[in-house]
Amino acid sequence: MIVRRDNLPSISHSIDCYLCAFSDTQIDPNNSYILKHTTQSTRCYIDKILYEINVNDLHRINKDSLNKNSIGRVKISTMDDLFFDSYDQNKITGSFILMDPGTYETVAVGMIKKDSSNDNIFYEDTIGKNHRELKQGHKTGVFWLTGLSGSGKTTIARGVEQDLFKRNYQVVILDGDNVRHGLCKDLGFTPEDRTENIRRIAHVAAILRDSGFIVLCSFISPLQEHRDMAREIVGDEFREIYIETDIKECIKRDVKGLYAKAIAGEIPNFTGISAPYEPPVNPDTHICTEFLDEVDSILVLREWIRDQTKL
Amino acid sequence: MIVRRDNLPSISHSIDCYLCAFSDTQIDPNNSYILKHTTQSTRCYIDKILYEINVNDLHRINKDSLNKNSIGRVKISTMDDLFFDSYDQNKITGSFILMDPGTYETVAVGMIKKDSSNDNIFYEDTIGKNHRELKQGHKTGVFWLTGLSGSGKTTIARGVEQDLFKRNYQVVILDGDNVRHGLCKDLGFTPEDRTENIRRIAHVAAILRDSGFIVLCSFISPLQEHRDMAREIVGDEFREIYIETDIKECIKRDVKGLYAKAIAGEIPNFTGISAPYEPPVNPDTHICTEFLDEVDSILVLREWIRDQTKL
Repeated sequence: MIVRRDNLPSISHSIDCYLCAFSDTQIDPNNSYILKHTTQSTRCYIDKILYEINVNDLHRINKDSLNKNSIGRVKISTMDDLFFDSYDQNKITGSFILMDPGTYETVAVGMIKKDSSNDNIFYEDTIGKNHRELKQGHKTGVFWLTGLSGSGKTTIARGVEQDLFKRNYQVVILDGDNVRHGLCKDLGFTPEDRTENIRRIAHVAAILRDSGFIVLCSFISPLQEHRDMAREIVGDEFREIYIETDIKECIKRDVKGLYAKAIAGEIPNFTGISAPYEPPVNPDTHICTEFLDEVDSILVLREWIRDQTKL
Repeated sequence: MIVRRDNLPSISHSIDCYLCAFSDTQIDPNNSYILKHTTQSTRCYIDKILYEINVNDLHRINKDSLNKNSIGRVKISTMDDLFFDSYDQNKITGSFILMDPGTYETVAVGMIKKDSSNDNIFYEDTIGKNHRELKQGHKTGVFWLTGLSGSGKTTIARGVEQDLFKRNYQVVILDGDNVRHGLCKDLGFTPEDRTENIRRIAHVAAILRDSGFIVLCSFISPLQEHRDMAREIVGDEFREIYIETDIKECIKRDVKGLYAKAIAGEIPNFTGISAPYEPPVNPDTHICTEFLDEVDSILVLREWIRDQTKL
């Protein structure tokens, strides 16, 4: 951009602007959009809808989203810096359009009022999930792997973590190793304690998710009730993944020698032997290790997760 | 690098190699080093010392670190990819030196045996803190801000978070908002529950730290005993930061109107009014808001944290 020395554009990734929506789907702070400004395109989020303008009396209306043909004042954060003027100063460098990243349909036009990066909201809040997702280029989520002991949950989770990490994803595993000796060391194996264990894990997963992570939870979690509770706690971004391996195969593998002990009666309440495993009623996805070896399981799950976390 | 088409170097950030140590300080998997290979320098970690070689009988000795003049076989991870051959094939592209990042002293020479990125350790473990630090370019840590209600802890933490986030640090805040309604909602205000609250928070902070974060914990945490417990749980990378603001100033600010209620006796056991606040005995650093305004406090703490988390 060639500009006069005394007439420099603003450079910022936070703008305060008016939006005129004209999509059938409403403009919503939970979605990300493509912002096209002059010759540049960048991903953006609507941080906040300050108000909608009632076009009849020009009064302000509090709104959480903008419907078709409504005009609102909003704050937007973009992934890349924009080089802009206010719309008052320059109609070209002060305007932009928002497009749906899936359909490339133009969903709104915008007129920039000002740079909002130094607004007094600066220290009002912590860095939200949206900002983190924008920066790292992928969505977050809690991927809950359930299956028998020895089904391959942890191996698959580790393979997926390694692979995504190399691809610069923010990814972390939450499993017994993280929590058993620390956060949950006060808990035993009574039904109440098992419930509390899953409750705490789900909350930690949610905190990690809010911090920007793809969280791979690897827990036997034999009860549907517990997995439903985890989904309830985590919310929308929870995915239940059933790692299905035949119990006979698990007994054959018996990496840690636990099945032998359980069958000999030395470990009480062992899932699959002396305690029930409830297969997921309606899992979000399903890896059947009878048909997929370890490497393929990792590949399939990794691709599914990449798809689920596309911005 | 110009190479023959049929004689390509290996490209990897994981190598299996022999190291000959000649520094007075021992070579240790907990430290990071500068690896200088041909014309390239990159940061590296020693993932594992496989064994030391007894130079008298060539037997292998299990060791956790390498002393001066000892030779060992180690696995190393580098931040950037190396383009190398094995030392057997090429003495130049198969060798490197390790330097101390503080003094630039050469602490070891290395001979590459092979690319170890596809070793069978691949799925044996989760991505460790060391790898995450290498990738993101800074160390992790738990920074525990303690101070009276209204002392400015949260504002300062948010300012530091915003600033570090913009500088591409991995940073997250843990405060009442994250945990009060979730992980710790079963806890009340008895002494036991307060202790359990801090215990859980410290464990979550440790999990976030292990996931690569600079964790800013903002809790009144009035008791030294509790802060000591948090330090005990988190370990070496715990830093206690005292946000010192005079109680009179806090009462004057009274942003949430809590002091007024506490003074009127409507809130029992309110820290600073009807319950004690124990100033840190020996904090790692100290922000005195009598002398520093908000912006300067953020600046000072941010620079201190950047210094503490230098790789």
